[in-house]
Amino acid sequence: MASLLKRLLIGKPIATEHQHHERLNNITALAVFSSDALSSVAYATEAILAVLIVGGASALGLGLPIAGGISFLLLVVAISYRQTIHAYPNGGGAYIVAHENLGQLPGLIAAAALLIDYVLTVAVSISAGVAAITSLATNWGAPWLAQYAVEIALLCILVVGLANLRGVKESGAVFAVPTYLFIVCILAMVAWGVGRMLLGTAQPVVQAVAPELHAGEALGLWLVLRAFAAGCTALTGVEAISNGIPAFKHPEAKNAATTLSWMVGILGTMFLGITWLADRLTAVPNEVTHETIVSQIARTVFGVGPVYTIIQVATALILVLAANTAYADFPRLASLLAKDRFLPRQFSSRGDRLVFSNGIVVLSLFAAGLVVFFRANEIAMLPLYAIGVFLSFTLSQGGMVIHHLREKEPGWRLGLGINGLGAGLTAVVLVVLVMTKFTHGAWVVLVLIPLLVVIFQAIHRHYVRVAAQLSLANATKPKPVRRLTAVVLVSGLHKGTLPALQIANALAPNNVTAVTVNMDAEYTERIHARWQDWGCDVPLVVLDSPYRSLITPLLKYIAEVDGRYHDDEVMVILPEFVPAHWWEHLLHNQTGLILRTALMFRAGKIVVSVPYKLEQ
Amino acid sequence: MASLLKRLLIGKPIATEHQHHERLNNITALAVFSSDALSSVAYATEAILAVLIVGGASALGLGLPIAGGISFLLLVVAISYRQTIHAYPNGGGAYIVAHENLGQLPGLIAAAALLIDYVLTVAVSISAGVAAITSLATNWGAPWLAQYAVEIALLCILVVGLANLRGVKESGAVFAVPTYLFIVCILAMVAWGVGRMLLGTAQPVVQAVAPELHAGEALGLWLVLRAFAAGCTALTGVEAISNGIPAFKHPEAKNAATTLSWMVGILGTMFLGITWLADRLTAVPNEVTHETIVSQIARTVFGVGPVYTIIQVATALILVLAANTAYADFPRLASLLAKDRFLPRQFSSRGDRLVFSNGIVVLSLFAAGLVVFFRANEIAMLPLYAIGVFLSFTLSQGGMVIHHLREKEPGWRLGLGINGLGAGLTAVVLVVLVMTKFTHGAWVVLVLIPLLVVIFQAIHRHYVRVAAQLSLANATKPKPVRRLTAVVLVSGLHKGTLPALQIANALAPNNVTAVTVNMDAEYTERIHARWQDWGCDVPLVVLDSPYRSLITPLLKYIAEVDGRYHDDEVMVILPEFVPAHWWEHLLHNQTGLILRTALMFRAGKIVVSVPYKLEQ
Repeated sequence: MASLLKRLLIGKPIATEHQHHERLNNITALAVFSSDALSSVAYATEAILAVLIVGGASALGLGLPIAGGISFLLLVVAISYRQTIHAYPNGGGAYIVAHENLGQLPGLIAAAALLIDYVLTVAVSISAGVAAITSLATNWGAPWLAQYAVEIALLCILVVGLANLRGVKESGAVFAVPTYLFIVCILAMVAWGVGRMLLGTAQPVVQAVAPELHAGEALGLWLVLRAFAAGCTALTGVEAISNGIPAFKHPEAKNAATTLSWMVGILGTMFLGITWLADRLTAVPNEVTHETIVSQIARTVFGVGPVYTIIQVATALILVLAANTAYADFPRLASLLAKDRFLPRQFSSRGDRLVFSNGIVVLSLFAAGLVVFFRANEIAMLPLYAIGVFLSFTLSQGGMVIHHLREKEPGWRLGLGINGLGAGLTAVVLVVLVMTKFTHGAWVVLVLIPLLVVIFQAIHRHYVRVAAQLSLANATKPKPVRRLTAVVLVSGLHKGTLPALQIANALAPNNVTAVTVNMDAEYTERIHARWQDWGCDVPLVVLDSPYRSLITPLLKYIAEVDGRYHDDEVMVILPEFVPAHWWEHLLHNQTGLILRTALMFRAGKIVVSVPYKLEQ
Repeated sequence: MASLLKRLLIGKPIATEHQHHERLNNITALAVFSSDALSSVAYATEAILAVLIVGGASALGLGLPIAGGISFLLLVVAISYRQTIHAYPNGGGAYIVAHENLGQLPGLIAAAALLIDYVLTVAVSISAGVAAITSLATNWGAPWLAQYAVEIALLCILVVGLANLRGVKESGAVFAVPTYLFIVCILAMVAWGVGRMLLGTAQPVVQAVAPELHAGEALGLWLVLRAFAAGCTALTGVEAISNGIPAFKHPEAKNAATTLSWMVGILGTMFLGITWLADRLTAVPNEVTHETIVSQIARTVFGVGPVYTIIQVATALILVLAANTAYADFPRLASLLAKDRFLPRQFSSRGDRLVFSNGIVVLSLFAAGLVVFFRANEIAMLPLYAIGVFLSFTLSQGGMVIHHLREKEPGWRLGLGINGLGAGLTAVVLVVLVMTKFTHGAWVVLVLIPLLVVIFQAIHRHYVRVAAQLSLANATKPKPVRRLTAVVLVSGLHKGTLPALQIANALAPNNVTAVTVNMDAEYTERIHARWQDWGCDVPLVVLDSPYRSLITPLLKYIAEVDGRYHDDEVMVILPEFVPAHWWEHLLHNQTGLILRTALMFRAGKIVVSVPYKLEQ
């Protein structure tokens, strides 16, 4: 039944040979790789304004210059990443680039930062997508939907997780439609809004509930830095293209670089456009209605009607796609780490549908935990976000600096300059992010990253140690076993015990003992009598157990038997009856399993399980 | 480490021989067995008023006559139970009495009803106890504590659960102090209150926030019946003494009957007294402050001071003791059912500390679930409560009617009359409870009881079937095994594989094959080469697995090997390496366990696990 459910949800297994690689043209590739980056315009402006609002109405005017600064940063990072694309045409993720050029530790730091950020990508994107939908519902007269934001977000994570367990083909249509719909919608909104503004027909945003405007904290550099740091979430996802170069058509690197330029151009235009409109239409984060900035702008520009609805739906869709990107990235990075023996090897095995199932499940669970903890409020999660991205930017660009110095390929000086600037600038931003967001939750990330690195290293040491111990390098062939001693554990004399006694006699003729533990004097007496009646030729030993423990007296007895001969192997034989239906296991003590675990793992004994299958 | 934690929380194991039986004098027995019954005065009056308040201020005056009716019912039930005490001096729980006299089905219904009610006893009593404490805190200027009611209640369940896992001795002092403190406090409050009332110095209750008094629903019979039904929770726990007769001093039955009479007298006095004071002081349930009726009365009578504080603390303590009663009753009933094979046998085994640990754990989990679901609001849980108790009253008294008719002991006619009246009256009340509480949540209980009975019966059928199949009645001695065939499953050739191959050679000389599944062509080739290099004399078979499944090709191959000879037993040998630390298990696929499960439970094969212990 469990297996039927699995088939229904996940689908039939796919053969290994069907692992396929689709090459994408630039138009499709843009859709596939940029949803994460582009979708961040859905919350980046709001993140900036949510900080500035503390400074009062006058501070909100700083939104636009700050967005300008972030766009400049975006440009530098993009140019810097073009270098990576050309240097690592097989995919230059931060883990690979940092590991290869800077060493194991920086590589692991980048990996830890990225894993954390992928989890946040899912939680933030899904929550922002749900916010788009609940804003839509509020304007269509259903404000009650906002109460169920957490439940809806969890449902989305479940659906995206299951879809990925089935195996989502990164194929064109699925991604192209929502991505281009979103691009067209936002650009149209910006153009229409700017047009109405120039014509003087635009009205400011009408708020259902007036947002709280504070009297105004001193508008210092600190507030500006905090707003800048909050807006840096716009840069998340920019690195996606450099991870996916092999998916491009020939010439891969050139096509990837071109697509990156397009993406950054579109992203910058949308981000600046939205921020400009928010400024002019006085859209402000509203803590009561929870209506998003994009929703406020869209309904003010187009009115609550079909176009507004399409914009909100397109926003929600691209945000779900953005979460989906993390579902490709997290399991892939985890499997790379597992292959390099820094994560449990379970992360490197492909499931029925050729996907890294364990990575998908773990990602879903962590993201769901974040959604519940933050009540699906993406703005509240943002302080944790972006730090991982910028850390990986810095390490990756820093790695490229070393790469240029080492390779000295043609034109390396220019590359060195570009990556040096990129690394320097992202490092500075990283420091700003850490400083401004530290007390708002970022400290959690700064504790988690080193913790993860320590765990990676502990896991690595374990695997290396195991491999050394299993190596046949200095092994000699073991001597053949001379004599086998069999101990049969019985709880009673019944049909289930007979096959075990029979096998024991075959394994170790004339060297078999049956053992039972005395838990109840009366019951034990009855076994003794039946043993005699049945005429069993195997002697029965009864062990006392004053504390009603099964394990302790047994282990003691086995150790005693083991000491008898020096040239024998003691085998413990466990008769186990197998119920006809799986649920019936619940009705029996899992004594067999517990005994086997104790005998094997604690006493290092050979355990022979002899099943007796019940028919009904 | 896990075992150290267990020792710390639960304590050292206790030997079976130390199971002890303390005989209680009547004073102590009253304390031990009556906390559940007596504590219900902490919420019974409030439950009545919470219904009547719907009928407006005028309806509240009906509280006293309703309490009078309930006290009469209490008297009838108590006299009826005195019969049971004399007829079943070894303990006459409803399950035993109904099972023995009315048959298996009524017995199971009574058992199901009681199990549900024990869970509710814990949830209701703990929640009411927390309400006493938060009311106290509110009057001492800490109203914020009420926000943490759920957390405090869960903590209480955890503490009481752990205490019971350690094994609470039902010994005098622990119970006597809070029970008699509570009795003295409440009786003193009633006396003082009545005195001040007679002297004319009493003031009505001052409410911090005025309670909502509805305009008044039509004050019909329905409302009165509902209020009566709500107040019947005062009767919960009356049956406790009849379960515990063997704990009394000689003459057990007589002492138990006397104690029961005392208890009912005290309970009735306190209940009527509180209800009278609530009426005269106009204490009303307050949905905003959540202050309990007892707290309102106590602070009005004594003022917010030391006496008031003692009353609240004593109330909280006796409520915790009441919950503790369910911790004795639920595991004991579950173990009785398990011994009669109606519940999984795990419920009948005593843990390290001689207590029925599984019952304690299950009770705690269900009670915690209820507390979370109802946000620790005991008044909201009450509609589910009491139905189980009255169902078991009716079945138990009905059983006594049959008992008298069958036994015809001296004076049986009087007994028949008493129990007939008891059974009839509780049956009528049961119908009233079901009718009035059905839509308020009682339907859940009415669905759960038959569901539980069906489960009991399914479990019973399973155990009976298993016993029949395991019976040696028609069994013949199995023929000795002629030939053993060994199949060794290997993932590679390393030190961990060697002992398995060595054992296989000893078990089935010249009849051993090694098998591996081809998950990765390159890796498999490497194994083949190493196999040759090492000069292994066992042939290696490589199985293809296009879907990367380990199990399917293996099961197919084993079936094939099995078909080869007709007089052999196939044994599958699993080399398993044992990590040096338990947590390292997480870093390895649990392949051994999965394979063993599939081979034993699906294919019915004998599985030999050969451990190889890693040293570090």
